[in-house]
Amino acid sequence: MVIGKVIGTLWATRKDEKLNGMKLLVVRHLNLDYSYKDSYAVAVDSVGAGIGEVVLITTGSSARQSQLTQGKPVDAVISAIIDKIDLPSEADI
Amino acid sequence: MVIGKVIGTLWATRKDEKLNGMKLLVVRHLNLDYSYKDSYAVAVDSVGAGIGEVVLITTGSSARQSQLTQGKPVDAVISAIIDKIDLPSEADI
Amino acid sequence: MVIGKVIGTLWATRKDEKLNGMKLLVVRHLNLDYSYKDSYAVAVDSVGAGIGEVVLITTGSSARQSQLTQGKPVDAVISAIIDKIDLPSEADI
Amino acid sequence: MVIGKVIGTLWATRKDEKLNGMKLLVVRHLNLDYSYKDSYAVAVDSVGAGIGEVVLITTGSSARQSQLTQGKPVDAVISAIIDKIDLPSEADI
Amino acid sequence: MVIGKVIGTLWATRKDEKLNGMKLLVVRHLNLDYSYKDSYAVAVDSVGAGIGEVVLITTGSSARQSQLTQGKPVDAVISAIIDKIDLPSEADI
Repeated sequence: MVIGKVIGTLWATRKDEKLNGMKLLVVRHLNLDYSYKDSYAVAVDSVGAGIGEVVLITTGSSARQSQLTQGKPVDAVISAIIDKIDLPSEADI
Repeated sequence: MVIGKVIGTLWATRKDEKLNGMKLLVVRHLNLDYSYKDSYAVAVDSVGAGIGEVVLITTGSSARQSQLTQGKPVDAVISAIIDKIDLPSEADI
Repeated sequence: MVIGKVIGTLWATRKDEKLNGMKLLVVRHLNLDYSYKDSYAVAVDSVGAGIGEVVLITTGSSARQSQLTQGKPVDAVISAIIDKIDLPSEADI
Repeated sequence: MVIGKVIGTLWATRKDEKLNGMKLLVVRHLNLDYSYKDSYAVAVDSVGAGIGEVVLITTGSSARQSQLTQGKPVDAVISAIIDKIDLPSEADI
Repeated sequence: MVIGKVIGTLWATRKDEKLNGMKLLVVRHLNLDYSYKDSYAVAVDSVGAGIGEVVLITTGSSARQSQLTQGKPVDAVISAIIDKIDLPSEADI
């Protein structure tokens, strides 16, 4: 999984009917110091994530393992809202 | 999922028979400001997308979850036509 | 899917028995103007492609959806031979 | 699979319920000389790995083949703790 | 599939029990002229490959289609030992 920040919402009227009712969020990938990477993903929200929140993104077929996305044409899902990333200093490792 | 713009059509007479009747579209990947990325994909159209439209692309095994692509050798499908990408300014996040 | 050009053949005597009888082709990835990318793939041929032909490559689990590759340790298959890529000029989009 | 070093832990209260009880570790990818790559992954621990340990990471749908992760929205799992990487000198190859 | 050269062995005592008895080989990816790429993979050996041999690597869920790796947390398998890569000169294409 990778870490991202929700920065927007995507609207689509004409779509695969299996996507009906799904919230499509735009997520910028983050480095471990929370700075933005250049890349982004569009992910389905399965945990009630909001704009500005730091989230965990699950991709590929594993993105279809949530109750919401099962059997759907979805390759990225927000599977958690991150409270804290605990990175001990290198010296302590 | 990622965002792309339909820029062309691909024609193939000799192909896996499971691809018969499928519209193969050439899609350039887009940045969030709608500028082109260098990369592209060939995706099956499942929503009636046309040249010039901005679309959502689902990849991998999830591309086989639409009614049209089930069980087919397809690893990218256009799953939605995008109306709007709503990106609040960073200050509002 | 991505576009490539068949540039060679790969020979292997000792291999997973499920690969027996399969033609393994070396395919260079192509840009949309048919120039070579740096990358390549080894793909199983399911459509009778020959050296020099421009082909469509399906990857991942979707590469196992052809009759030939089902249940085989194959992650890339040539699923079509491309006749034409139709790219209207940007002005027409 | 790829090699990484466990450098941290990720905490998330609001998450897909299927992730309950799973330890989410932050793993920096390693080169073969154990130097850090720029990239990282968040992986579920299935073998009791601790901070500072060098581990093997299995990704994609294969990450759901451990007893712990079956049917879960998990795309990366720590599948082994590495004791030693044996790289004979090029001259001996 | 991609081409690599076996350059080492990986040892792990504590691991997912489904990996028991599997030989984990370190494989450097190769260009088509047999020069090394920067990247590597750790792959399970299913064909008796040895150090220094040039091999075919199957990745993703397709890596679980060999008899040895079925249902195992394995995302890369050595599926063939390559005898020869036949690349006709561009002029002949």
